[in-house]
Amino acid sequence: MKNIDVLVIGGGPAGIISSSTAKAVNPEKSVGMVREEPNFMIPCAIPYTFGTLLPDTEKDMISSDVLRGAGVDVIVDKIEKVDLEEKIAYRKNESIKFEKLVFATGSLPNIPKIGGVDAEGVFEIEKYKREVDKFNSYLNGVESKNVVIVGSGFIGVEVAGELVQTGRNVYLVGSSNRVLKPAFDAPFSEKIEEELHKLNVNIMNSTRVEEIITEDGKVKGVKLNSGETIETETVILSIGYHPNSELAKASGVRTGVKGGIWVDEYMRTSVEDVFAVGDCAEKKNFLTRDLSNVMLASTATAEARIAGSSLYNLRYVKGFTGTVATFSTVVGNLCFSSVGITESEAQKEKIDFVTGEFEIINRHPAVLPGATKQKIKLVAMKRTGAVIGGQVVGGVESGELVNLIGLMVENKMTIYSIINLQFATHPLLTASPLAYPVVKSAEMIAKKIDSCFI
Amino acid sequence: MKNIDVLVIGGGPAGIISSSTAKAVNPEKSVGMVREEPNFMIPCAIPYTFGTLLPDTEKDMISSDVLRGAGVDVIVDKIEKVDLEEKIAYRKNESIKFEKLVFATGSLPNIPKIGGVDAEGVFEIEKYKREVDKFNSYLNGVESKNVVIVGSGFIGVEVAGELVQTGRNVYLVGSSNRVLKPAFDAPFSEKIEEELHKLNVNIMNSTRVEEIITEDGKVKGVKLNSGETIETETVILSIGYHPNSELAKASGVRTGVKGGIWVDEYMRTSVEDVFAVGDCAEKKNFLTRDLSNVMLASTATAEARIAGSSLYNLRYVKGFTGTVATFSTVVGNLCFSSVGITESEAQKEKIDFVTGEFEIINRHPAVLPGATKQKIKLVAMKRTGAVIGGQVVGGVESGELVNLIGLMVENKMTIYSIINLQFATHPLLTASPLAYPVVKSAEMIAKKIDSCFI
Repeated sequence: MKNIDVLVIGGGPAGIISSSTAKAVNPEKSVGMVREEPNFMIPCAIPYTFGTLLPDTEKDMISSDVLRGAGVDVIVDKIEKVDLEEKIAYRKNESIKFEKLVFATGSLPNIPKIGGVDAEGVFEIEKYKREVDKFNSYLNGVESKNVVIVGSGFIGVEVAGELVQTGRNVYLVGSSNRVLKPAFDAPFSEKIEEELHKLNVNIMNSTRVEEIITEDGKVKGVKLNSGETIETETVILSIGYHPNSELAKASGVRTGVKGGIWVDEYMRTSVEDVFAVGDCAEKKNFLTRDLSNVMLASTATAEARIAGSSLYNLRYVKGFTGTVATFSTVVGNLCFSSVGITESEAQKEKIDFVTGEFEIINRHPAVLPGATKQKIKLVAMKRTGAVIGGQVVGGVESGELVNLIGLMVENKMTIYSIINLQFATHPLLTASPLAYPVVKSAEMIAKKIDSCFI
Repeated sequence: MKNIDVLVIGGGPAGIISSSTAKAVNPEKSVGMVREEPNFMIPCAIPYTFGTLLPDTEKDMISSDVLRGAGVDVIVDKIEKVDLEEKIAYRKNESIKFEKLVFATGSLPNIPKIGGVDAEGVFEIEKYKREVDKFNSYLNGVESKNVVIVGSGFIGVEVAGELVQTGRNVYLVGSSNRVLKPAFDAPFSEKIEEELHKLNVNIMNSTRVEEIITEDGKVKGVKLNSGETIETETVILSIGYHPNSELAKASGVRTGVKGGIWVDEYMRTSVEDVFAVGDCAEKKNFLTRDLSNVMLASTATAEARIAGSSLYNLRYVKGFTGTVATFSTVVGNLCFSSVGITESEAQKEKIDFVTGEFEIINRHPAVLPGATKQKIKLVAMKRTGAVIGGQVVGGVESGELVNLIGLMVENKMTIYSIINLQFATHPLLTASPLAYPVVKSAEMIAKKIDSCFI
């Protein structure tokens, strides 16, 4: 039997960061991570391996040597059972005795309950190189140029935008009335759809796939709820993921109604010395306290840093208590980012909110290189002005601009403090200091709140 | 005599924002702004009118019609005297009776005490179109390709980078041992110098111009403290600016040792109903409380928003109490940003500090388009871990990344809360979630602080 002080099960972003943080914080402890593939695929970049940017999946890999260099023992294997009382994890031929255990087992794709999902030609976006390579080689072999993507969330949208650039006819079929609905309000979804249209993606909103049509166990098409059928040999399912928590559940830790492993603010599970981080751990929305389906590498790594540094003692007061769901994507020539609560969500959740938005060019004057329209929308609580959400569309700066808004959300900052802030501006990098959109949006909210007091 | 409830003297960023905010907050009041030129030149983009990006200065103008549309009376004139007891401002032919007055008179270039500064061919970078046009037309007329820029601060650096691209031989002469010393630590200054070298700018650090050599009142060259002379017909002085506070001083408001108009946290001067904002108002460093020479449009607009909304009553608790000196610049192919205290400054000011830095590619994987090395350095207080400064070099995202760090500085956030934060990452927009540089720098600081406790 092998002895490893800190054992991490799972080798995605959550596993990598919890094991490397554990080793950095406790250099005297041995830290091991068990993963199924020898090296790590950058999950968020998988859509680009289907397009023109990363045709070689090797380029999307991070070697385990980086982790080994940090002192983490990387074991390529699968844990089949965990005994939490004896503190032993069982591999096929060997067992590992541990002091602390971290579940970082990730998530599994949701499969719709329709006919034909098991046919050859139906794929989910999985995070293993072998699966990605299998998909790419299948796609190179088929005759039909048609690809049907089921689900218009961010993986569906990104994969559609990439596949269409390799000459495929892409059908993006979503049951929502607009793409990326959970993260964006309608005007932003519309801009995303405009960009997808320019790329020649066929968007089919408010549409359900009722059945995958097969012949000899192979995909031949899909039948839609409209009665229409689309001929295709390739169907991609991207209707979300669910926590991969079977191993944990079988070991006796508590899981929630959505299948996530229950954790407290320090990522401790219901069993002492056992932690869970990333997609397999239960998530709550920072504001509504509802269970959240949002699974992001950024959330996973934040959780992993907390778990990794809280294994043997608590070092910091835990700063946040729920996911703010912050992410960015690129569609066509525009970048879209979102954090926190959207206006649609605020309405649905009966939050007393007020919004402000502002659009301007992201350079000043607007004739400078890189100039793109930049639009920011903030959502705030009506009484306090606390910022609870933001959406951005613009150039590449959107990726960090949303982190600026995310910081406001996580810190419960109000629009009144934002109005006072000093922001760096530069002609070639940002909007004008005269009309910096974060400030202008905050001012618009202040004005709306003012009008309630008259 | 004309009656204007709120009179703003000065039409730069501070004047524009204080007058437009005053009108937005007090729509029932008349608001007027007096400026010397009919329209407004975007000051931060002036260097680009000397290069290839904005050769036509018209493209760098904002029409006063925007302000008029917001209900501000724009008066093109000069105020020659202000009587604060009677509340009357005197123009050449007319006088204006006001209730509230805002000084937004900006700054004037510093002139070194050396011979020859009055000669034809010596220029300062002024913020009026007429002055910029005069310089550009002079430059087109001279025979010598040599241009000597005195002062290696950010205006000197930006003007050098632009002029050299129009085929000039540019000498950047600075008394500091490296460029942009107040904003950056040595390794960042070195990278800036590397970029300037690639553009063929001649950098002459630790060098002083002792005399401007003239003939018939025209520039013929400069004499350096090394004894060397440089032949040139064009000298640009960019050794900083000082508050343009003469009008205010003559009217009786208190000014400080550096000439700035004394103001409190709401930008109120020593005289009731009189405010001052922007470069003409005294600035204090947010941490050291020393008087600060930093003059930025972003600070000016933040002050103007506070003054404009505090004229008749206080509406918000003032959030910040000093300049954090946040700015960005572009040199060659890299973007550089800075906020707060540098390591050099922390040493000089005897601050108990600790630093962390991290370098990575700003895309993941690193082969994606737009990939550039990104380096972040954070400076924090040793005991609390409060972030007091940050520096960034990288791609265009640096412009908003520094605002993220600025928000941490202004909010007195500690590195422990940063480690807990959720940051959005995307392959095409940011560094990897596994090694997001702001978090990695914070972790490095945490580790250094930890080592003090052993």
